Amino acid sequence: MPNSSIAPNSAPPTGIRGSFIDFVDDPFIQDEQASIRWIPDGLLVIQDGYIKAFGNYSQIAPAYDNLAIQTHDDRIIMPGLIDTHIHYPQTGMIAAYGEQLLEWLSRYTFPTEQKFKDKTYALEIAELFLDELLKNGTTTALIYAAVFPESVDAIFEAAQRRNLRLIAGKVMMDRNAPKDLCDTAETSYQESKALIQKWHQKGRLLYAVTPRFAGTSSRSQLDMAGKLLREFPGVYLQTHLSENRDEVAWIRELFPDSQDYLDVYDRSGLVQSRSVFAHGIHLSEREFQRLSEAESAIAFCPTSNLFLGSGLFNLARAKSADSPVKVGLGTDVGAGTSFSLLQTTNEAYKVAQLQGQKLSPLQAMFLATLGGARALSLEDKIGNFDVGKEADFIVLDDQATPLMALRNGSHDHQTLEALCDRIFSLVIMGDDRAIAATYIMGQPAHTR
Amino acid sequence: MPNSSIAPNSAPPTGIRGSFIDFVDDPFIQDEQASIRWIPDGLLVIQDGYIKAFGNYSQIAPAYDNLAIQTHDDRIIMPGLIDTHIHYPQTGMIAAYGEQLLEWLSRYTFPTEQKFKDKTYALEIAELFLDELLKNGTTTALIYAAVFPESVDAIFEAAQRRNLRLIAGKVMMDRNAPKDLCDTAETSYQESKALIQKWHQKGRLLYAVTPRFAGTSSRSQLDMAGKLLREFPGVYLQTHLSENRDEVAWIRELFPDSQDYLDVYDRSGLVQSRSVFAHGIHLSEREFQRLSEAESAIAFCPTSNLFLGSGLFNLARAKSADSPVKVGLGTDVGAGTSFSLLQTTNEAYKVAQLQGQKLSPLQAMFLATLGGARALSLEDKIGNFDVGKEADFIVLDDQATPLMALRNGSHDHQTLEALCDRIFSLVIMGDDRAIAATYIMGQPAHTR
Repeated sequence: MPNSSIAPNSAPPTGIRGSFIDFVDDPFIQDEQASIRWIPDGLLVIQDGYIKAFGNYSQIAPAYDNLAIQTHDDRIIMPGLIDTHIHYPQTGMIAAYGEQLLEWLSRYTFPTEQKFKDKTYALEIAELFLDELLKNGTTTALIYAAVFPESVDAIFEAAQRRNLRLIAGKVMMDRNAPKDLCDTAETSYQESKALIQKWHQKGRLLYAVTPRFAGTSSRSQLDMAGKLLREFPGVYLQTHLSENRDEVAWIRELFPDSQDYLDVYDRSGLVQSRSVFAHGIHLSEREFQRLSEAESAIAFCPTSNLFLGSGLFNLARAKSADSPVKVGLGTDVGAGTSFSLLQTTNEAYKVAQLQGQKLSPLQAMFLATLGGARALSLEDKIGNFDVGKEADFIVLDDQATPLMALRNGSHDHQTLEALCDRIFSLVIMGDDRAIAATYIMGQPAHTR
Repeated sequence: MPNSSIAPNSAPPTGIRGSFIDFVDDPFIQDEQASIRWIPDGLLVIQDGYIKAFGNYSQIAPAYDNLAIQTHDDRIIMPGLIDTHIHYPQTGMIAAYGEQLLEWLSRYTFPTEQKFKDKTYALEIAELFLDELLKNGTTTALIYAAVFPESVDAIFEAAQRRNLRLIAGKVMMDRNAPKDLCDTAETSYQESKALIQKWHQKGRLLYAVTPRFAGTSSRSQLDMAGKLLREFPGVYLQTHLSENRDEVAWIRELFPDSQDYLDVYDRSGLVQSRSVFAHGIHLSEREFQRLSEAESAIAFCPTSNLFLGSGLFNLARAKSADSPVKVGLGTDVGAGTSFSLLQTTNEAYKVAQLQGQKLSPLQAMFLATLGGARALSLEDKIGNFDVGKEADFIVLDDQATPLMALRNGSHDHQTLEALCDRIFSLVIMGDDRAIAATYIMGQPAHTR
């Protein structure tokens, strides 16, 4: 291909016309009206999968002769949803009965994850898993594979074929788990390193160093995770933090020298700006402050937190203006019982209500889009419709069921207040049926 | 028609064959295995809408030559679901944003209920409402209409056409609400009395005296409600009780002479065996004991309780063996955000988990069927497949979505444990899509 600024091999641009909303700032911190960008008759111009232009149809369209335009009437077009915490090997064991965290792991999770040593099986589940993501409007996810490198290859291969912006990693786990599921500090380092070299930044794929949690990793293994982060500065760190009271007490016993749960990770150099900690329900003020200072993120997983009875995440504290912590939403399948980030916003709203906090419809949608992108340090690539970003987006149908049609059918759509009310119905009542279409790099990847 | 024991005008019996489960006792009190009746290959014989025979296919079938049998393979057939608390005028205002109870009433509920003075509008919503019930597998509900008698006529007329076993009543409300929505103690008495005479025990319909709650009824009005109960011993009483802390404090101010919230109702003679109190979240031990003694019921509405941030119902206390209180499930639409009693069991499970209680799959399904029938004192008519009862039932599909098919597809169905696991997936992941069919008096009333 000749080196030319005209990029002669580019496909012609295409257009998407409709009612767009996205966020340009954080509605927890800034004024809501200033945070949202609502374009009732907008045009999104896409070329080679990237956003080339975005704005009012009347302003953008004249610059593009013969643009092939697809129009979505009576819909809301939003950036793709971002799931900051999910376990793909747990897809088939979703909704397992009756336990809280530690018993749930040993009774259901560990036996299930054994199967992912088999690459063929892992690939089969990986495909089903990605189908579910796209069907639910999720275009990016931060994913735990199993302890076996084969399981990581499977999810990355499947994601690569679909050209998805995904982050995943091999679980590191060297104690307090069945022997067949354990690696060692050294093998986990070597295997993770090989996977990073194989997959990180291959196309849209990114790697996350993934010690499951402090309960199943020795200090040596956590140190090895830290070593990987130093050797490969662009990779992510994902783990679990302060999910359940029994777990917190157990971690205190396992690491008596650490001042608190977060400090266990900090001492191995794991608390940094590309670190995503799932849950964070029982954090001290010191831990919140340290997360804020380190620019680490919390994956808030309300469905899972309720399902396992873990507790209520203090979202208002996490998003406090003084020392804010980045927060994204996680479905946490299989302890979360739905792939839908809309059902997850529903549960997030309830967690807030139970604490006398308010989660507005726009705040909820921010968490699921730009908030998630920021939590994953991907706001330069995804999360809203800024020019130059990757064109991952969804088309929402707020009349997807007869009941939603009754509720939303008579609304005028001309004011921001009416729009927010429609969005709230998606936040509370929406599921996969409300996702009319999911686009990846400008191409339809799922249509209802 | 000749007076004959052979009932010559009866239709010939018909049969339903498949895997049946129902309850013959309370799995909160009795052993679960002894409470459930599971017939993997069962036959239900129906004549004139009533259950004529029920048991193993091989035992029942020989007695019926030429029986027209409909078979439901790979499904679970259960008694129809029972919703013990729902507001039909709130159908179109489901999922209204951002308030807790008292503000929510004045901001959303009261303006919406104004519209139900118009019989035509009320009928239109009543039909949509009943469509939603049946689509979600709900065959019986205890329903609040609006304050206008027209709104009661509308729901009963619509229910009569569908031959549903429903209980409903006119809201009584004589203070602390918009003037247009208020009746008086005297008019509420007269209007309720006329409605009882018009509708109670007309076909399958039953009437409930319905003071909204102590906050919007004067002592005189509550006394009038008590008078109606004495004059018409078969009618029901429904109201709200102890939903929200601000509400409880306000009721204490309004009725300083009463020892607690329940006592406010007790002093007007409203605490009896056909009384159903919605919520009961912040009850004292005395109130639980009094409810137990009076054989009153609580409608547990977990979705609504979480959505409005009202709190966590103490199900374990309510169902304690020493002084048990009858409990049914309520969706509480529109503060509940789904018509699905399966989604309601999901939320009930979470409310239990957050309190360190366990709600087993069988207990959850008991609450939605026989438990609900007992809460409504209708266990002689509905709630399980006992011979002589009305044949309202549903056909459940535990592979209704690709994800449920993955989870449940590989299960053998030959043990009670495996069955419970499948049921749990319905309890947690089920919604209207899991309802393959709903039958009313033996006739299909909804098919997916």
